[in-house]
Amino acid sequence: MRTGGRTADQLRPVRITRGYTIHAEGSVLVEFGQTRVLCTASVEEKVPPHKRGSGEGWVTAEYGMLPRATHTRGDREAARGKQSGRTQEIQRLIGRSLRAVFDLKRLGERSIQLDCDVLQADGGTRTAAITGAWVAAQDAVNRLLAEGKLKESPITSHVAAVSVGIVEGTPLLDLEYVEDVSCDTDMNVVMTGAGHYVEVQGTAEGVPFTRKEMDELLRLAEKGIAELVQMQEAALKA
Amino acid sequence: MRTGGRTADQLRPVRITRGYTIHAEGSVLVEFGQTRVLCTASVEEKVPPHKRGSGEGWVTAEYGMLPRATHTRGDREAARGKQSGRTQEIQRLIGRSLRAVFDLKRLGERSIQLDCDVLQADGGTRTAAITGAWVAAQDAVNRLLAEGKLKESPITSHVAAVSVGIVEGTPLLDLEYVEDVSCDTDMNVVMTGAGHYVEVQGTAEGVPFTRKEMDELLRLAEKGIAELVQMQEAALKA
Amino acid sequence: MRTGGRTADQLRPVRITRGYTIHAEGSVLVEFGQTRVLCTASVEEKVPPHKRGSGEGWVTAEYGMLPRATHTRGDREAARGKQSGRTQEIQRLIGRSLRAVFDLKRLGERSIQLDCDVLQADGGTRTAAITGAWVAAQDAVNRLLAEGKLKESPITSHVAAVSVGIVEGTPLLDLEYVEDVSCDTDMNVVMTGAGHYVEVQGTAEGVPFTRKEMDELLRLAEKGIAELVQMQEAALKA
Amino acid sequence: MRTGGRTADQLRPVRITRGYTIHAEGSVLVEFGQTRVLCTASVEEKVPPHKRGSGEGWVTAEYGMLPRATHTRGDREAARGKQSGRTQEIQRLIGRSLRAVFDLKRLGERSIQLDCDVLQADGGTRTAAITGAWVAAQDAVNRLLAEGKLKESPITSHVAAVSVGIVEGTPLLDLEYVEDVSCDTDMNVVMTGAGHYVEVQGTAEGVPFTRKEMDELLRLAEKGIAELVQMQEAALKA
Amino acid sequence: MRTGGRTADQLRPVRITRGYTIHAEGSVLVEFGQTRVLCTASVEEKVPPHKRGSGEGWVTAEYGMLPRATHTRGDREAARGKQSGRTQEIQRLIGRSLRAVFDLKRLGERSIQLDCDVLQADGGTRTAAITGAWVAAQDAVNRLLAEGKLKESPITSHVAAVSVGIVEGTPLLDLEYVEDVSCDTDMNVVMTGAGHYVEVQGTAEGVPFTRKEMDELLRLAEKGIAELVQMQEAALKA
Amino acid sequence: MRTGGRTADQLRPVRITRGYTIHAEGSVLVEFGQTRVLCTASVEEKVPPHKRGSGEGWVTAEYGMLPRATHTRGDREAARGKQSGRTQEIQRLIGRSLRAVFDLKRLGERSIQLDCDVLQADGGTRTAAITGAWVAAQDAVNRLLAEGKLKESPITSHVAAVSVGIVEGTPLLDLEYVEDVSCDTDMNVVMTGAGHYVEVQGTAEGVPFTRKEMDELLRLAEKGIAELVQMQEAALKA
Repeated sequence: MRTGGRTADQLRPVRITRGYTIHAEGSVLVEFGQTRVLCTASVEEKVPPHKRGSGEGWVTAEYGMLPRATHTRGDREAARGKQSGRTQEIQRLIGRSLRAVFDLKRLGERSIQLDCDVLQADGGTRTAAITGAWVAAQDAVNRLLAEGKLKESPITSHVAAVSVGIVEGTPLLDLEYVEDVSCDTDMNVVMTGAGHYVEVQGTAEGVPFTRKEMDELLRLAEKGIAELVQMQEAALKA
Repeated sequence: MRTGGRTADQLRPVRITRGYTIHAEGSVLVEFGQTRVLCTASVEEKVPPHKRGSGEGWVTAEYGMLPRATHTRGDREAARGKQSGRTQEIQRLIGRSLRAVFDLKRLGERSIQLDCDVLQADGGTRTAAITGAWVAAQDAVNRLLAEGKLKESPITSHVAAVSVGIVEGTPLLDLEYVEDVSCDTDMNVVMTGAGHYVEVQGTAEGVPFTRKEMDELLRLAEKGIAELVQMQEAALKA
Repeated sequence: MRTGGRTADQLRPVRITRGYTIHAEGSVLVEFGQTRVLCTASVEEKVPPHKRGSGEGWVTAEYGMLPRATHTRGDREAARGKQSGRTQEIQRLIGRSLRAVFDLKRLGERSIQLDCDVLQADGGTRTAAITGAWVAAQDAVNRLLAEGKLKESPITSHVAAVSVGIVEGTPLLDLEYVEDVSCDTDMNVVMTGAGHYVEVQGTAEGVPFTRKEMDELLRLAEKGIAELVQMQEAALKA
Repeated sequence: MRTGGRTADQLRPVRITRGYTIHAEGSVLVEFGQTRVLCTASVEEKVPPHKRGSGEGWVTAEYGMLPRATHTRGDREAARGKQSGRTQEIQRLIGRSLRAVFDLKRLGERSIQLDCDVLQADGGTRTAAITGAWVAAQDAVNRLLAEGKLKESPITSHVAAVSVGIVEGTPLLDLEYVEDVSCDTDMNVVMTGAGHYVEVQGTAEGVPFTRKEMDELLRLAEKGIAELVQMQEAALKA
Repeated sequence: MRTGGRTADQLRPVRITRGYTIHAEGSVLVEFGQTRVLCTASVEEKVPPHKRGSGEGWVTAEYGMLPRATHTRGDREAARGKQSGRTQEIQRLIGRSLRAVFDLKRLGERSIQLDCDVLQADGGTRTAAITGAWVAAQDAVNRLLAEGKLKESPITSHVAAVSVGIVEGTPLLDLEYVEDVSCDTDMNVVMTGAGHYVEVQGTAEGVPFTRKEMDELLRLAEKGIAELVQMQEAALKA
Repeated sequence: MRTGGRTADQLRPVRITRGYTIHAEGSVLVEFGQTRVLCTASVEEKVPPHKRGSGEGWVTAEYGMLPRATHTRGDREAARGKQSGRTQEIQRLIGRSLRAVFDLKRLGERSIQLDCDVLQADGGTRTAAITGAWVAAQDAVNRLLAEGKLKESPITSHVAAVSVGIVEGTPLLDLEYVEDVSCDTDMNVVMTGAGHYVEVQGTAEGVPFTRKEMDELLRLAEKGIAELVQMQEAALKA
C-alpha cells in the first residue's frame, strides 16, 4: 500500500511553481509529493574557457541539499570543504540532461547556469531537479527572446525525469524515500518530449534484476515522463 | 523615499512562518520584506568534544546563501571548497547570539544546530537569520519539553536582531539592499527581550561616524528589536 | 571499419594476467585491446565505521589514471588536491558492482579494497576495471580460504562489464577511444554470471536514443559479458 | 586589582618600535604590555582584479599568530590547511579599519599589504595590530613620497584601536588575557585621530549589557584611543 | 647475506624497458630488482608562468605510488586530497636532478613533464625513478630532434642515481626494502655521466655516521652509478 | 669580498637569545647575521598515535616564514591553504635532526614540538633553525628535569647545522642570501657535538660538483659546526 493510496504506476502529486524567487532569470519550485527542489536558471554573458571563441554557449548545473532537508541532518558541504561523490554525480547528470535538449550554437556565446537546491527531500530529488530545471531554463530563454538577445529558442525539446524501482518484487513509479531505501532496484530515467532516452541509470541495490524487470521499469518510466511533460507544458501556460 | 513609503524608523513587513519544512525539530521561514531565510533547528543527542562529560549542551549555527539568492549569481561555496570569511563571520555571530539566551546546563548534553539558509537576499540576511533562528530553537525546545526530555526550558530570553545605518546623512532602520550598498555606516544590533545588548557591530563603510550618530542608530535598533520580539511572540502563539 | 577488422559485436582482444605485482592479495592486469588497468585487491582486517560491530565486511574501490595514460597528459589528481567528478563516479560504480556479488555477512568483519589504476587508456577503462577487479577479488578470497580465515566464499557470482554504443547509427560492442568520442550513445552495462543486471548506465552524448536502439545495445552487452565471464573463468584456471 | 597596579581607565605600557625588520617598506613591532605584534607594510605596484583599471589602489591585511604565541600551543594554520573563522574575522577588521583612513584614489594603482603577526599574545592582539599597522603604513607611504611615487599622502587620518570590557561589573580599558577570559562583555573600538568611529564590535560573552554600560565602555575607549594616537605620533617623530 | 647472494657493492638486476606505454613521447619501465617504476616524458609546447617569454624551456617531475605498490596498502593521495611531504620531496629531487643535465635555452620555450609512478616498491624508488626518467627524457628529445623541432639536443650529460647505506656496520650499494628499514644511514646519490655530483642526501636514521663511513658510501655510489649509466646507454641502443 | 669583510671560512655573527617569548617551555631567537629565526619548544603530555602505548616520546618540528621576512613579500601559507614543498622539506629535516640526538625512551610518553618561524631571512634559515631549536629543546628539557618529570636528560648530544657552498669557484662557509642565489653548489650539513654527521644535503644548482669540492665543503662545515656548538654551550651557560 503506497502513501495516499497511490497505484504502482501513479506519480505523486506534482506542483511546478514559477517565479518562486525574484532575482533569477528562471526560478521554479518543483514538488514531487514532499520532495521540494528550488531550480534557478541564471544567464551569464560569458562561457567557460573550453567554449571561448567557439560561437557556442554552455549549459551546466549544480546541485545541493540544505543540511536539514533530510530526516537526520547531513553535513553542510560548504563547511566540510567538498562536495560528495553523490552530489557531483547528480549535478553532472542534470547538466548532461539539459544539454541534451539545447542547441548550443543557437544559444550563442552565453551560459545558462542551473542551480538545483533541495529544500525538502523525500526521494527522487534528482528527477524532480531535472524536471524543474527544464522549466526554469525555458523561462530564462523566453526572457532572452523577449529582450531580443535570441532570435529563436535553443531548446529543441522537453526533458523530464522520473525514478522507478522494484520494491518487494513490484515495479513502482516515482519512489518516495521509504520505498527508495527498501527497493532492490532503483532506476532513474531521463527522456525527451519525443519519448526518446537521454539517460538510463539502473542500479541493483539488492538482487540483480532481469531483462523482463527492466522492460517493465522502462514502461513505467515512459508513462510517468509523458505525464511530467504535460505538467511542464501546463506550468508554462499558467 | 524608501520602498513602499516606509518611514526612517519603520521595519519592512515581517513574516515568520513556522513548520516550513517537515523534518527539522524547528523550521521557520523568516521574511524581512524581500529577504527570505529558512532557519531550521536540529536536535542531536551528542555534543562536540569540548563539551563532552561537562553536563552542558551546545548551540551552534551555520549560514549559507543559495547561489542565486542575489541579484547576480554568486559562487556555490560547496563547489569552491570553502566558506568565505563573510559566511564564517555571520555564522559565528548567529551562534553567539543564540547561546547568549541559552542556559547550556539546563539543555543537558545535547546540541541544537541552527541552519540559516538564505533563499532570497535583499539586505539584512544575518539579522533576519537570528530573529528566525530563535523561533526555530524555541520550537525545538518545546518539542523536547513535550517529549519529557527537558523539564524546564533552557531559553532564558528572546533574542532578535536588526540592521541600522546612515544613508545620505539619515539614520534608517532595517536597511534593504539598495540602502545597504549606499550607506556610510552599517550597524547590526542584537538584543534580548529585556532590551539588553548581545552584539553591536558598527562599521563605517564610508565616512567615520560620530558618537551622536551612534546614539541615534542605537535608538532606532532598540525600537525595531522591540517590535521583532513581539512578532516572534505572536508567531509562537499562532 | 573497426580496428583490426573487428565486427560490430566483437570484443577487443582481452588479456587477464594474474599476479602482476607481488604485494597485493590479488593483483590482476586486465587488457581490453590497448586499454590496460592494474587491479589490486587488498585485504584489511578492519571495517569502516558504519560496519563496525555489524558482523559484516565491506568491499570498496578506488580508481585512478596515470597522468600520461591518455593521448594528452592529464593533471595528476593528487597534485591538484582532489579527485574529479568523473573519477568519483567511476570508483563508486566499481564498488557497487563488486558488492552486488558479495555476501558481506559471509566475508566477516574485514574489508577488501579494490584499486583500479589505468596504466594506458583506450576507451572502456571502467568496464575493464570491473572485469579485472572481480578476478583480483577472487584471488584475495581464495587466499583467505586457503589460510582458513574464511570457511566458504562470500562471492556469490561472477560480475563483468562492457561498454556498448551507437556510432553513426550502428550499435557496437566494446568501444575503443576513437569510437567513444564520436558516438551518439554510450552505455556501460554490468552483469552477473547468471546474466542479470547489476548496473545499466546509458547516456545520449548526441541524439537521444530510441527504445529499439536500447534493446539492441542490451543484446550486444549481454553477448560481450557472457564472453568476459568465460575469460575470467579461464584466467582463474590458468 | 590589575597587573602592575593599573587603574580601570589606564592603558598597559605601549611601545612602538619602527624598523623592526629590514626588508619591508614599513615594519613595526607594537607592544601593548606583553602582547607583541609585528606589523609590516609591503608596497606592490599592482592591484587585485576588482581594482584594475580603476585608477584606485588597494589596502588589505592578513593576520596570523605564531603557534606558541599563546599559553598552550595552537595549531599552525598553514599545516591545518585553512585559516580559522577567528583569523579571517580579525584580518577583515584590520583591512577595513586601515582602508577607512586611506584615499584609494590618491594612492594610485598600487597596493599596500599589511601583515600582522602575533609573536606573543596577552589579550588585545587585534587592537594592537590596527594601531601598529597604521604606523607601518605611514612609513611605507613616507617612502613612496620620498621616492616621488606619490605627490601627496593618501592617509587622511590616524586610526587606532583598543579593547574595553566589563569584568565583574567594572568597566576596564585595554584588557589583558586574564581579564579577557573572565569578562562579561568585550568590545573592540576603532577610531580615527579626529575621534570618530570606524568600527565598534561589542559582544556579551556572559550577561547581556545595558545601554548605560555601553556608554561607559565607549567613554573608556575614546580616552584610550586618544592616548594611542599620541603614541603613534611620537613614534613617527622618533 | 643479501637476497640472491648479492655482494655489498653489487646492484640488483636492472632492467630498462622503453616504449612501455604508447601515448607518451618517452615511456620507460625501470626495474631495480623488485622495484618497478613507470617513467613517462610528456612534451608540451608551453612553459609555466616564470619562464614565459624567457626563450627558455622547463623540465619538471611528479612522483606517485600506487596504493598497493607496497607491503601494506597506503592511502591514495588523490583521495586524501594532498601529496605527502615525502612525495613532494621526491618529486622536487627528480626535477632538480633532470634539470641539472638540461640546457633549458637549447630546449626552447617548451616543457618536458616527467611522471614517475611506482607500480611496485622494494626500496630505491626515487633513484630508479631518476635513472628511468633520464631515458624517457632522452626518447622525448630524440623525437623532437627527429621532427625537426630541435636542432641539437638540450641534454648535456647522463644523470643516474643510486641509494647506499650502512646496515649493521656494513656499507651496502642499492638497498632493497628490508635493508632500508634496518639501516643506520641512508644516502641517495645522483651523479652525471662525467662522474660529478648533482645531489647527495645522506641521513642518519640511527647512529650518526663518521666521515670515514661517508667516504666509503660515496665510493660505492660512484661505482653503482657508473654501471647504471652504461645500462642507460645500452637501453638507448637496443 | 664578503659582507663585513668575512673570510671564506668564517661564520656570520651569531647571537642566541634565550627566553625571547614568555609562554613556551623553551624560546630562543637565533640570529646568523641578518637571518632571525624564533625557535620555541612546547612540551605536551601526549604523543601522536604511532607512539601511543610505546613508552616512548616524540620530537617533531614545524617551520614557517612570515610573509615579509624576505626581500619581496611571499604568499602566506595559511591563506593559500597549504604548506609549500620547500616548507615541508625543511620541517622534516629539522625534526629528523633533533630526533637524532634524542633518546625517545628516556623522554617518556610526551612530545616536544619545535616551532621555527623566520622573522627575517638572509640565507641559512634552516640551519639557523636547527641550531636554535636545539637550545630551545634543551631549555624545555631542563624545565622537565627541574620539575622532576624527567630523571635524566633524553638529549644525547648537541646538534647544529650550517650551510656551505661554492660561489664562483670558491668554497664558502655560512652563505648569506646574495651568495646563496649565485652559488653553483649549496650544501646543508647537520652534525652532532661529537663531530658525526646527521644529515648532508648537497645540491648542484649550476655546475655539478666534484669529489674534491665536496671534501672541501665538508671541511668548512665541520669547522663552522664546531664553533656553533660552542656558542650553543655558551648560550646555555649565560
